[in-house]
Parts: sequence; structure tokens; C-alpha cells
Amino acid sequence: MSGSTFGTLFRVTNFGESHGPAIGCVIDGCPPGMELSEADIQPELDRRRPGTSRHVTQRNEADAVEILSGVYEGKTTGTPIALLIRNTDQRSKDYGNILQTFRPGHADYTYWHKYGIRDPRGGGRSSARLTAPTVAAGAVARKWLQQKFGTTFVGHMTQLGEIAVPFESLEHIPNNPFFAANATDIPRLEAYMDELRKAGDSCGARIDVAARNVPAGLGEPLYDRLDADIAHAMMGLNAVKGVEIGAGFASIAQRGTVHGDELSPEGFRSNNAGGVLGGISTGQDITVSIAIKPTSSIRSPRQSIDLQGQPATVETFGRHDPCVGIRATPIAEALLALVLMDHALRHRAQCGDVRVEPGPIPGQA
Amino acid sequence: MSGSTFGTLFRVTNFGESHGPAIGCVIDGCPPGMELSEADIQPELDRRRPGTSRHVTQRNEADAVEILSGVYEGKTTGTPIALLIRNTDQRSKDYGNILQTFRPGHADYTYWHKYGIRDPRGGGRSSARLTAPTVAAGAVARKWLQQKFGTTFVGHMTQLGEIAVPFESLEHIPNNPFFAANATDIPRLEAYMDELRKAGDSCGARIDVAARNVPAGLGEPLYDRLDADIAHAMMGLNAVKGVEIGAGFASIAQRGTVHGDELSPEGFRSNNAGGVLGGISTGQDITVSIAIKPTSSIRSPRQSIDLQGQPATVETFGRHDPCVGIRATPIAEALLALVLMDHALRHRAQCGDVRVEPGPIPGQA
Amino acid sequence: MSGSTFGTLFRVTNFGESHGPAIGCVIDGCPPGMELSEADIQPELDRRRPGTSRHVTQRNEADAVEILSGVYEGKTTGTPIALLIRNTDQRSKDYGNILQTFRPGHADYTYWHKYGIRDPRGGGRSSARLTAPTVAAGAVARKWLQQKFGTTFVGHMTQLGEIAVPFESLEHIPNNPFFAANATDIPRLEAYMDELRKAGDSCGARIDVAARNVPAGLGEPLYDRLDADIAHAMMGLNAVKGVEIGAGFASIAQRGTVHGDELSPEGFRSNNAGGVLGGISTGQDITVSIAIKPTSSIRSPRQSIDLQGQPATVETFGRHDPCVGIRATPIAEALLALVLMDHALRHRAQCGDVRVEPGPIPGQA
Amino acid sequence: MSGSTFGTLFRVTNFGESHGPAIGCVIDGCPPGMELSEADIQPELDRRRPGTSRHVTQRNEADAVEILSGVYEGKTTGTPIALLIRNTDQRSKDYGNILQTFRPGHADYTYWHKYGIRDPRGGGRSSARLTAPTVAAGAVARKWLQQKFGTTFVGHMTQLGEIAVPFESLEHIPNNPFFAANATDIPRLEAYMDELRKAGDSCGARIDVAARNVPAGLGEPLYDRLDADIAHAMMGLNAVKGVEIGAGFASIAQRGTVHGDELSPEGFRSNNAGGVLGGISTGQDITVSIAIKPTSSIRSPRQSIDLQGQPATVETFGRHDPCVGIRATPIAEALLALVLMDHALRHRAQCGDVRVEPGPIPGQA
Repeated sequence: MSGSTFGTLFRVTNFGESHGPAIGCVIDGCPPGMELSEADIQPELDRRRPGTSRHVTQRNEADAVEILSGVYEGKTTGTPIALLIRNTDQRSKDYGNILQTFRPGHADYTYWHKYGIRDPRGGGRSSARLTAPTVAAGAVARKWLQQKFGTTFVGHMTQLGEIAVPFESLEHIPNNPFFAANATDIPRLEAYMDELRKAGDSCGARIDVAARNVPAGLGEPLYDRLDADIAHAMMGLNAVKGVEIGAGFASIAQRGTVHGDELSPEGFRSNNAGGVLGGISTGQDITVSIAIKPTSSIRSPRQSIDLQGQPATVETFGRHDPCVGIRATPIAEALLALVLMDHALRHRAQCGDVRVEPGPIPGQA
Repeated sequence: MSGSTFGTLFRVTNFGESHGPAIGCVIDGCPPGMELSEADIQPELDRRRPGTSRHVTQRNEADAVEILSGVYEGKTTGTPIALLIRNTDQRSKDYGNILQTFRPGHADYTYWHKYGIRDPRGGGRSSARLTAPTVAAGAVARKWLQQKFGTTFVGHMTQLGEIAVPFESLEHIPNNPFFAANATDIPRLEAYMDELRKAGDSCGARIDVAARNVPAGLGEPLYDRLDADIAHAMMGLNAVKGVEIGAGFASIAQRGTVHGDELSPEGFRSNNAGGVLGGISTGQDITVSIAIKPTSSIRSPRQSIDLQGQPATVETFGRHDPCVGIRATPIAEALLALVLMDHALRHRAQCGDVRVEPGPIPGQA
Repeated sequence: MSGSTFGTLFRVTNFGESHGPAIGCVIDGCPPGMELSEADIQPELDRRRPGTSRHVTQRNEADAVEILSGVYEGKTTGTPIALLIRNTDQRSKDYGNILQTFRPGHADYTYWHKYGIRDPRGGGRSSARLTAPTVAAGAVARKWLQQKFGTTFVGHMTQLGEIAVPFESLEHIPNNPFFAANATDIPRLEAYMDELRKAGDSCGARIDVAARNVPAGLGEPLYDRLDADIAHAMMGLNAVKGVEIGAGFASIAQRGTVHGDELSPEGFRSNNAGGVLGGISTGQDITVSIAIKPTSSIRSPRQSIDLQGQPATVETFGRHDPCVGIRATPIAEALLALVLMDHALRHRAQCGDVRVEPGPIPGQA
Repeated sequence: MSGSTFGTLFRVTNFGESHGPAIGCVIDGCPPGMELSEADIQPELDRRRPGTSRHVTQRNEADAVEILSGVYEGKTTGTPIALLIRNTDQRSKDYGNILQTFRPGHADYTYWHKYGIRDPRGGGRSSARLTAPTVAAGAVARKWLQQKFGTTFVGHMTQLGEIAVPFESLEHIPNNPFFAANATDIPRLEAYMDELRKAGDSCGARIDVAARNVPAGLGEPLYDRLDADIAHAMMGLNAVKGVEIGAGFASIAQRGTVHGDELSPEGFRSNNAGGVLGGISTGQDITVSIAIKPTSSIRSPRQSIDLQGQPATVETFGRHDPCVGIRATPIAEALLALVLMDHALRHRAQCGDVRVEPGPIPGQA
């Protein structure tokens, strides 16, 4: 059972390969009556787009999105919204050498084992290029959540390889190629990346992402808790190896007297929970942190095997991001938005519309 | 849309409250023809059972499981397997005080906000007691995976509060109350727990869990990657705040030349991937690590609010685990088994039976 | 992928075998805050119950339902509602002869082919006894729909074998063993059934079922139209071979000028549509008609084969309904209620709460 | 929860509006390694295509399909197959008048009630044009089923309005504009249609469709029986008001001694079951019959209301099929193929690959 649909009620079905004719997605379940055009989606795609600095892949894709359905006279109609992005800068010759060998750290080996066939052009289906439709769908979710609840999303890089990136201000994020909330350390990060690139190597990154103005009550225990679905979304993003909510791994060494967030009439006094208790949103910020592994496509020669199981040396040329984490921030924001959107609809299916205003809670039906 | 079903093809629907008449689950999709009786399930429930040492809740529950359906003359028939566990040691009077206040770190606040009604007896639906049916279903999955692929599961505690628990031998795990792969440090851990209990406080834990003899090819990109579904399962376990696969957060600071696991004709040379590449199993061990927060139910007084939003002090009496992580090991194993079971069925739906033997891979249909 | 769950948002997972320890279901997704007790469910089970007249099976089952979860202090909590019905009058010795042969018209042959194993006691999973949990879940749906929209359900038998049963009044339905809206013809129907029973034969039936006070707007094109889901529900009921909505097969010979229901300011002028246009409810009565085949379990000898494929003669003794259609009416009502309930929740997930009052329709979001 | 996805494991997500830029679908779950190109799909679209005779709409659409993904070097890769059909002959001016009124028998009223907004151009989402992607997806399913089991599909019209169309030979089907298995009566049918068109009226039709060489064992009780899912598919086709399997409504008046199909060592002796017993395929032909209502878009004036609820007279001009049943045959075949495809994958998920060869049945696991 193939898993190319994200979400249960706000459902995003993704299609495409890195070097096929097109990529895209179909969003089924978007509420009707919301104003929507390509102008709502394109800016998010542009944030994720390759070729925007020397620290990311030089593939040059406009990533222009076309809305094929689901919108009439500028408003969503409640029918599926199909989004199409034509691929325009495929250079498949760059990848010819990977047909006969398995690149370490890549999906080559597992796709081959699973399907008995794989599209090797640009990584085929396993390429991070397939996050573009996710970002496009996320833009639709963000708009609805913003209008309905005032929810906003903001992510930034907090570590690049060994270098921690201190928080200075959210305003810096759009002004550097790293999505860093920092201005002081940018030259150091750039030098670090330049050195890596020269060495034919790569590094990982940590991204923090948060949602603000999230209504309380989202999440569907026993199993589809909000944090569980966030973890599913984030761990499903290419190259992610770890996910934390709130205090995350630091909570192991915390005492109960410290970790449990106390309440006052003004609200919670801390947020170790990361905005989720018992799998349901508290109304606080949702805070998530993810670990992204170093890019597997590097120029340095690595040992591997070929299709016959014989030893082979692999060097990956072509255009690759030396740190895939750099472009991950808008994708992580989109994924968080998609999870919250799905849960907003799930909530109102069973319990009716989310109460935005706090206060005495009447019995429901 | 309520989320009490785990899995898509091997589907476990969980029901019950901590102090209601019974808890249990219905497993839909189990392959027919497998020998199954309560004797396959009860031992796993016994590992999770409360009251087995002074370091866990003193609630005394036999957790005796009854198979209500889906088995005929000792074999599964392919029809739903209903598992019933009667609650026998409820003492609801212990919990009367929590009706009017929200305990910090608890699901009280969010269930109230979500549903407008909550069953306060023993935490109701949010109680960790509801992991028992998950463990029972996991035992069924474990048996099938063991018979089909020889897959086994083993978890152990690797950190208790501030104390790292060094690995000594897997043989020690069943011989101490902590599921520690260690004999030397047990007295120190016991002293630590005794002190915590006296202080009316609690601590977190880290659990590592692994699956061995996992066939290559399990996982359903783009979104339902194996690692994504593992993260969903683990983050959905009560009190979990972080999940890592393979090198996890350490991979941030690794270089690509280090992280990407090289291959040789004999197999992979390392396992930073944790057995998953591109969201699909490699055939190596699946390795997962989870962070469990300190128990929220502690005797020490905490500040909170009541139903009217007024300040209130909360002290939680009753029978609680001072470290919920202690009993988490068999649950984490069960969850990992459920994910692999579901993906084994998903795989064969689309691609036919998993190839257990490696070797040249023919085209599929 | 086993199919024992009915519905997508109001999800009923059915379990059990005819002669196992128990049958039942888990309802996941019921809105919180509704008053509910066994007294809401038992009367519907009693309508379906065997042994109530000489024209149905003499199996004597109390079919007493127990609510195991999901209700606290008499109200639904939004968590799964598990319903348990213990089997109490199994006589498995009656069925020993069917182990080695396949009864014509029965599921013996197909269960054997599908699963390679089958529980032959009382038809096992394929027994119509498994409609009891469906009826129980339907009672929960009926209550919610009644309270929310005033929706009611009424079914009656309109044909018994070759005999058409003229409509006289709905008031007659509870006063005869056939669920006939008729008083005049009951003696004739009883004589017909007595004769059939003596002849060791069986007959079919037609059941009409309607829902009233259905809000407009329920149904989810493109594929999950309301009529499509009604057809799925009805054709999935044991022994059903045909389903009609509105004018049904008669619409083939109707002209467009006749069939298309005209509107006036007072509403629709006819209901050939059966309350569904474009797969969405119109607000008119939903009208459905189903064809039920004659019972396959009959005393008359039939030709068949045994497990080795050799010729065998089969005579079915034991306790069977000579017309399974007789008890189908409350089941068909329950199924229609479950479909509408599911669609009411599906509708509000995407579009917000159903507008009960007609009138000018504002844009939605 | 929007319902634009068909199937559970072979999942077809449909998008588009009659007069939008494009229509299409994404197929998720197709087994890898099957040869596939547009040439496998286009012939089925051509059978459904408008403008092929004077008895169907004169809209002139090439309906040229483009495969956007999921195929590499002529073979399916196991990743989603996106199919795109550009709309090329929209004439939206034809439909301007329906913006302010509700056409009797149409989805105008219900879409408006449900979504609060509708795309009126060509019927928008409710247009039968949206069956084209279903047919395209069906062609993929047909190819796989043909290769795997030798399964074939054949449908034909058996009644046009009041006129029964006697069966003569399947060879006639492609040689007349009605998909009739008949040569003798074609002139009479043509005259009947010409008369209807002149009268500004329309009529219904009955279509019979069958699948041959279906393996035994497909179908997922308790609820997702094969016949239930067939009924869902067929009743979900535009304008269908009734569905029968096997003997259908005629089984009401049959005796059990007649209806239940006897078995012999050579196989079943009759097929009143229509190839399904207990919701599972028997290996016999699956036989289905559907009732299609007369087209609602007719030139004759009808009474209705406008958006303000005031009386209005509606005459529908534009290009419409006077009998939508005429083009329904290839669609019904495609739907039956999609159901069987989905169930073939569902079966092997739980039970392993379908046994094609009959014979002694080993226990499964």
C-alpha cells in the first residue's frame, strides 16, 4: 500500500520524479470559499527553491506552480485542488554513473530492493525535489489556518554541522542563505560551507520550527496524537534522523517538579510540553526541533557495491546541496501546517468547530 | 476523526478507560493460519504489568487477556481478533481531587478543552494503562514476524534521569526492574529511585529499542516511510518527547564522509542510518531511541488553576510510577513490531511477498 | 486488508463469530456529550433478535449488550465506545456435517478459498448473527441524528417471495412478525411461510427503508457519494442482491421530462431521486429498496462437492430463518443511519456544521 | 472529508472540473514492473469519448492522456502514476443561464447547499466528464488483471428507455453506437433516439457488465465485501439509480431450492450469485446490472426555483447526451476493474498471493 498521501481529512497526494515531466499534488478536502491563487503558493515555493545561493544546488528551476482545479473565480470550491509544477532543468546525463552502483547513505539500495526497478535520474522519487509539492500544499493550509485562527509558522536553523547558531532575532531569517535567526555569525557559516564544498564533504543541521496561535484541543488520541503526527511528518522529511517536541531529549534528566508546566490564571508558566499534553494541543506554541543528516551525495570517493554485489567506488558529481538542512526550514514549516490543518478538520468532524476563545466549556454534541 | 486505530493493514483499534469495566483492542487484518492463544500474549502483558517492583505503581492488575474472536481450533482465521482485559483494581476514590483542577503536565486540561467532558478516574482514556492492549496486539505481530522472517525485538533502558546506564549484556535485561542491559549499576539506580520517591518527585528515561532480522524493502514513501511511521508510533506513546533513528541528533555534527554507511560484498560497514534509507528498511537492524519525560503525577505541590480559571495547588496522591520510562521498554518493542507488521503487509499488497533472501532482484509485477 | 470497519469518521469495527465467546463492535468517532446507555441500544437489538416468532430461527439469544467504554456518568466522552454481546445459545453440534462439504449459496466455499481455514460453527464469521453489532452501533447513530436533525428511519417489507405486500399504514409494522406496513395480508403471509417451512424451502424478500428529516448537503463526490455509500452498506448486508435509490430500475423507462424532480418555492414536487442528486442529499426523504435472496440453509437436499472436490449431497439442518429478509428491516435501518451519521461528520469536517434551516446560503470557509 | 479517492490499496485520486484547465487522476499503489504507456490507456478513453455519433454530446474532446509520473523506460516503478487530460473544447457561454437557477434532476441544488459555492461551467465537478480519469485508471487496472489472472471485462446495453435490447453476440458491441450486443435492432434504437432528441427529451438505460477469469477469494467481509464495493462503485457513477449482482431483484421471488447455485466436480451449475458468495468471489463470472436514469439536461422547459427561492422556468441548451447510458458501458467496465484490482491487492496483503489454480488448499500464513 503505497504511502503518497499525507493527512486523513486534508489529504495531499504527491506525485512525480525528479527528472520526469512534472511533479505536483492533489489536495482533497480543502474547505470551500477561501480565496486562493498561485500568488498564495509561489512565495513559499520560492523560499524552498534551489539555486538561490552558492551554498545550495545550482539546479535552476523556476518551480512555477499551476492550479489545475478546485478554484472558481478565485475561491476554493471544496473540490480537489490539483497543483502542477513542470520540471524544466533536468540534466539526466549527470547521473548516469549511479545506475550500476548503490551510493552510500542513499535510497538507491532500498528502492532497488523494494520495487525491483528504480528511476535513477536525479534520485527519481527519492529526491528532495519532491518536497516542493508538500510546500505548495502547506501554503494552502497556512492560509486557511491564518484566516481561521491567526496561526503562524516560523522556523530557523539553530545548528550547522558542529556550529551552534545563537538566536538573535526572527527578523534576520529572510536575510541570509541559512534561515538563521542571526546576523553576527553568517560570515562564519559561509566560510564553513565554502570549506566543506572544497573538501567534497557535507554536514548536517538542526532546524527549530514553531506554530503560534494554535487553538487548544487539536489531536486525536489514542494513537493519532498531535505530537505523533508531527513526528510522522518530520521524520518523513528527507534526511531527518531525529525529532523533538518541547524539551525533547532534555526532559530525560529533568525532574517532574521542573518539567510539568504549571498553570496560572494568565496561562501556562513554561512550555516544556512544546504545546502538546496527552497528544492534544494546549494553546501554547507548538515547538519542534529536527536533526538533519549530512548530504549523502558528495564528491569524496566512498566504498560500495554494484548490482552484482561486487565492490565499487562511488563518487557523486552533479549538482547537490552540501547541506540539505539549509533548505529544510520552509519544508518543516509546511509540514507542521499540514499536520495542524488536518487536525483542525479532524477535530471539528467529531467535536464541532474549535473554540477559539478560552473560557467555560459547555458540554458538546 | 478519532484516532484510536493503529496501522493501515494490520489495524489495531484500542478501547477503554483506566477505571472503566474493561480495556482491549480489535486486530483486523491478521493473516490466517497462524497458531495463536492467550499464552502467546500474556507474557508480554506480564512484562508491562504494574506492581512488579517497588519502583512502579502498586496498582495490582492481573491484566489477564481473553481472546474473544478470530481464532478457531488454535489458529487465526483471518477475521478480527478481539482481545479483552477486564479492569479489576480500580480505586477511583484516589482521584476525586483532580475533578476540579488541572494537573500540570497532564492531559486533564487538553481533554477538557477538546471534548468538554472527561473521565477523571485514573486518568480515564489518557492513562498509560491503555498501552496494555497495544502490547497485547504487539505480541501477535511479534509472533508472525518471528515465524515469517525471524525478526526479533529487544529494548532496554539506557538512561534513568541524569544517570547513563552503560551497556553490559542483553542477558541482564530480564533480571532487574529497569529493563537495563546492565548488572553493575542496578543498586545505584535503585537508590536513585528510592530517593526520588521520598522527595515526591519523578524523573525521565531513555529507552533504546531495536529490531533484528528485518527484511529489506519495508516502508512506503513518499510520506509513510518506515522511519516516519516508527516516529509516529513512538511519539504517540505516553510521555515520549523525542525520537531518534540510527545516529539521530548526533548526525547533525557528522560529516557526509562519516555518516553515509558504506557497503561491501559482506553488507553494510556501519549503521548510522539505523536500518532505514529513503524511508525503506535496508535489512540492517532498525535502531530507535526515545526520550521519556518525568511522570507528571507527583506528590510535590504544584501551581495550577481550577475549572473556573482560579489559582489552585495540586498534589497528586494515588498510585503512580515515579518514572513511567521504567515500564516503557516492552511497549516500545510492541510498537516497533506493530509498525513492521503493518509495513510487511503493505509491502506485499503492492510488491508481492518480501524477498527474504538477498541476491539478484527480478523485475516485479 | 480486512474490511471489518464500517465508515470513515464514525467508524464501527465489528468482531466475533456466530459460535465464539462473544460478538461486538468498537465505535470510534462518536461526538462527546451525548447521553447514552444500554437502554438506547437494547430495543433495536430486540427488534432484530432471533426467536421472536415461528417464522425465524429458534435460536434463543438474549443479545444483551454491555457498554465497556466511552461513556462516563451517562454521557459519551468522545473516546471509543466498545459494545459487547456474549453468545449464549451456541449449539455447535448442529453444524458438524458442513465441515466436509460446501453448502450451495453459502460462504463456505469462498471463505475456504480465501483464508484456507474457516470456523464452521454456525457459519462462523459469515453468519447473519454478525449484523447484531451493526444494529447496536446504528442505535447510537440514530440517537445522535435524531437529536441533531430530527432524522428518523423507518423500514418495512414490501414483498415476501412472490407476494407483494401492499402499503396500508406504518403503524402496522411493529404488530406483525414481518415488519409489514400492512394488517390485512398477514394471515396470507403466515400461511405462505408455514408452507415453505414444511417444504424445506425458503424465499426472498424486498425491504424498503427511508430516512426522514435528512439535512441537505450530505455526500462526498466524486466517489463517496451518499448514494454510493448507501449502496455499499446495503449490498454488504448478508443475502442482498440488489439496491435501488428513489425510482431505481424503473427510471430506465422514464423520460427526462418525468424523472427529473421539479422544484417549487415549497420544495420538490416529486422524489424520483430518492433524496440524492449528484451524490448529495437534497433534504427530501432518502428512499432505498433492497432485494434479499432466499435463505441458502434449507432442509431440501442439494448437490455439491466435498473438500476433495468429489460430489456430495447437502441437507442443512439446524435452526435457520426460512426467509432471512424477515429480520432484515431493523438492520437496513441501522445501516442507513450509520451511513448518514458518517456523512454528517464528513460534511462538517470540510464544510462546517450542516445548515439545518434552508434559506440563502453564505459562502463558506 | 472529501471523497475523491477511489479504492484503498490501488488508490485513484480524481481531480478537475468540466471546464477547468484539465482533469486527471493520480494512481497510488500500482505494482512495479508492468509495461505501461499512453497507448494502453488511450483506447479506453476513446471508447468513452464524446462526439463519436449523433446520439451523444457533440462536445469535441480529444481526451488525450499524458502520463506525468510513475513510469520509467516504459515500466511502472511502483510510485504514483499521474494522468493528465487537458480540457480543450469548453464553451462556457453555453451554460451562463444555469447560474441563477437549479436544473431539475441536477446536482446544482445540492452542490450549492453543500459548498455554498459552485462552478457552473459545464456542470463543474458534477459533470460526467469526470468519469474520463476513472476510465483511464481502469485501463491500468485492466492491464494488470489481464496479465496476472487473464481477467477480462465486457459490458453492453441491455435496455434503452422502454426498449429491451436482446442479446445476439458480443461481437456486435463495437459496431454500433450503443454498445449493444445486437445487430438487428440498431435501426430501431437509432430511430428511438432521433425521436427523443427532436422531442427535447431523454431516456434511461440498463447496462450489464461482467468480469471473466476472476480468481476465487477476492472480497473483504464483514463490510467491504466484493459485492458491496461493486455496488459502491456502480451507484457512484453519475445517473445510476440501481445495482444488481447476479439474479438481483429477481431473487426475491426465487425459492432457495432454485437460487442457491449447486456445485459439481466440474464447477458451479448456475450463477444466480453473480460470482459472489458471502462477499467473496467464487471464481465464476462477476455479473452486474445497473439502471441509469434519463439525462436531466433537456430542452423541454421544466419548473424550478432561482437562488432566491422564486419560481423559474429552466430550459437547458448546450451539448448534452440524450441518454447518458449510451456512454456508460466503458465506464462501468472500468469501475468493475478498479474494484477487482483493489481487492486483488487487499487479498494478498492479508493472505498472500491469490491462488489462481484451484485444488487442495493449504493453511495460510
